[in-house]
Amino acid sequence: MPSFTVFKGSKDGSIKKSQTSKPELKGDQVQLKVTASGLCGTDLHYREGDMVLGHEGVGIIEAVGPDVKYMKKGDRVGWGYEHDSCGHCKECLTGAETYCPDRQMYGEADLDQGSFAHGAVWREAFLFPIPDGLSDAAAAPLQCGGATVFNALYTNGIKPTETVGIMGVGGLGHLAIQFASKMGCDVVVLSGSDRKKDEALKLGAKEFIATKDKKELSVPRKLDRLLVTTSAQPEWEKLIPILAPRATIHPISIAGGNFEIPYMPLVLNGLRVQGSVVAARAVHQQMLEFAALHKIEPIMEKFPMTEKGIAEAMEKLNNGQMRYRGVLIPE
Amino acid sequence: MPSFTVFKGSKDGSIKKSQTSKPELKGDQVQLKVTASGLCGTDLHYREGDMVLGHEGVGIIEAVGPDVKYMKKGDRVGWGYEHDSCGHCKECLTGAETYCPDRQMYGEADLDQGSFAHGAVWREAFLFPIPDGLSDAAAAPLQCGGATVFNALYTNGIKPTETVGIMGVGGLGHLAIQFASKMGCDVVVLSGSDRKKDEALKLGAKEFIATKDKKELSVPRKLDRLLVTTSAQPEWEKLIPILAPRATIHPISIAGGNFEIPYMPLVLNGLRVQGSVVAARAVHQQMLEFAALHKIEPIMEKFPMTEKGIAEAMEKLNNGQMRYRGVLIPE
Repeated sequence: MPSFTVFKGSKDGSIKKSQTSKPELKGDQVQLKVTASGLCGTDLHYREGDMVLGHEGVGIIEAVGPDVKYMKKGDRVGWGYEHDSCGHCKECLTGAETYCPDRQMYGEADLDQGSFAHGAVWREAFLFPIPDGLSDAAAAPLQCGGATVFNALYTNGIKPTETVGIMGVGGLGHLAIQFASKMGCDVVVLSGSDRKKDEALKLGAKEFIATKDKKELSVPRKLDRLLVTTSAQPEWEKLIPILAPRATIHPISIAGGNFEIPYMPLVLNGLRVQGSVVAARAVHQQMLEFAALHKIEPIMEKFPMTEKGIAEAMEKLNNGQMRYRGVLIPE
Repeated sequence: MPSFTVFKGSKDGSIKKSQTSKPELKGDQVQLKVTASGLCGTDLHYREGDMVLGHEGVGIIEAVGPDVKYMKKGDRVGWGYEHDSCGHCKECLTGAETYCPDRQMYGEADLDQGSFAHGAVWREAFLFPIPDGLSDAAAAPLQCGGATVFNALYTNGIKPTETVGIMGVGGLGHLAIQFASKMGCDVVVLSGSDRKKDEALKLGAKEFIATKDKKELSVPRKLDRLLVTTSAQPEWEKLIPILAPRATIHPISIAGGNFEIPYMPLVLNGLRVQGSVVAARAVHQQMLEFAALHKIEPIMEKFPMTEKGIAEAMEKLNNGQMRYRGVLIPE
């Protein structure tokens, strides 16, 4: 019976080491040894839950169930937010299983497992081979952060000739800059201050705009697309004038309350607001291959995968000091 | 010099008969005699303006300018919200001239002309031949109302297999029901009370839901698309549960303030909010031909195009009593 160390949230928000056992592998289940895990903003939301944390996992396959067909012991694979779906609904059948009404997602299903762990058991169907050229640590933050920004852009018809605004340079934004730039797009970064300017330009941005103290923004080329990776709601009165007609806005961070945007420009300029979650599997795999091909990697800070290491990483992320994605490595 | 009777708004909201003269026809200008005009909600917004009202015009060509190539005296044509655009920008060159930064629109340009008039001078390039089988009166409300709802659906990838919700049965909604139904869609109408149920079903709806006193809505098939034709903001807590994953929401009425929608379902269900205005020319012409082919016509109330007739029609529209589109006929 597979059994492994896991790290859970708890009522007071402290991280608790625990143990999860699984019955014998059945169907297309795969047992793997975790080698790296990303730390995502969503993990902070769940740290007071009685559940194993983490959903940006990379590991090595140690054993396979009777129906596993495409993976074998020793393969390096990753997984993300979704663990399973029904396989029969319209969403599943059209490659959009992330919207399956019976999707099994982090925070909702399989709470006894996560990527803050030394091992896990998942369905082969929801694991992704890691292309050569991507290290375990670099591949981990791509399983959710990378998949989310790539999916928003790629699944919604991005063209290489677009000017793409990326709002916020953090765990998501710094990956989005790289993806959009390597897609051929003209990338404009919007950030509060000038602090991250050099880094953003190095990652592929053509323009950098510090927004904080400006009453009006100006851009050489209007934005065809705006990816909002900040959790604060955008100041639309500043942003609307720099959006091209028919621009698409992607709110991808997690926030409560209402999404709000001035009604008249939404209609008169033919704007589109496009919600999206992580990538469905076909897109997730394409994202990994695109990243490997173009050497797109997160900028990482590594922490040991221990109660103390996880708590420290979470603290840093929570304070907005992570540069730019925390990665936990089992000792 | 072409000269014709027009009807203008005025400071106190009363309708004033006036006269507009135009210099000799030049370029591709066409002079026409108005035979019918629709009355649209937007006209109410402008009734206190010093401008000629109306933007759902149909008429007969009386004279053509030196560069007119495709139209001739005696042709029956219509026009709508847009009178001209630059012809050179990306929007114009991609068949989206309704989003041209230099678009000449009703309420902003050519204020000395409108469809509440006995005549008008417009560019041939922005006129639309009326297909046989559509009467002048029936064709008039299609020039803005029809074009707006058809465009929202058609330009944003509607499929004949979709379930389409139409919220509101009025000037726009009763045309949207017909268009979506003839596109092959499964049409679900959402209206406050049961009052318009029979009519909505006759127009092509498969389901009718009276929303007012219901705490929860239920539909046999979830909505892939929701066209919001009411000016009141939708009650999302009731509507979100009946939207399919990846549904598109089209807010098409005119309203101030912010568009608001709960943030989490927008993201988690991959919803899309798509703004849009009237149809660009290629789509406008297709809409007219589709309407003629499928005998899609507005349900009309006719009024004489006089100061009194216009005022009476506006009063009725303003009170929400128009069934469903007012049409003004010059005497």
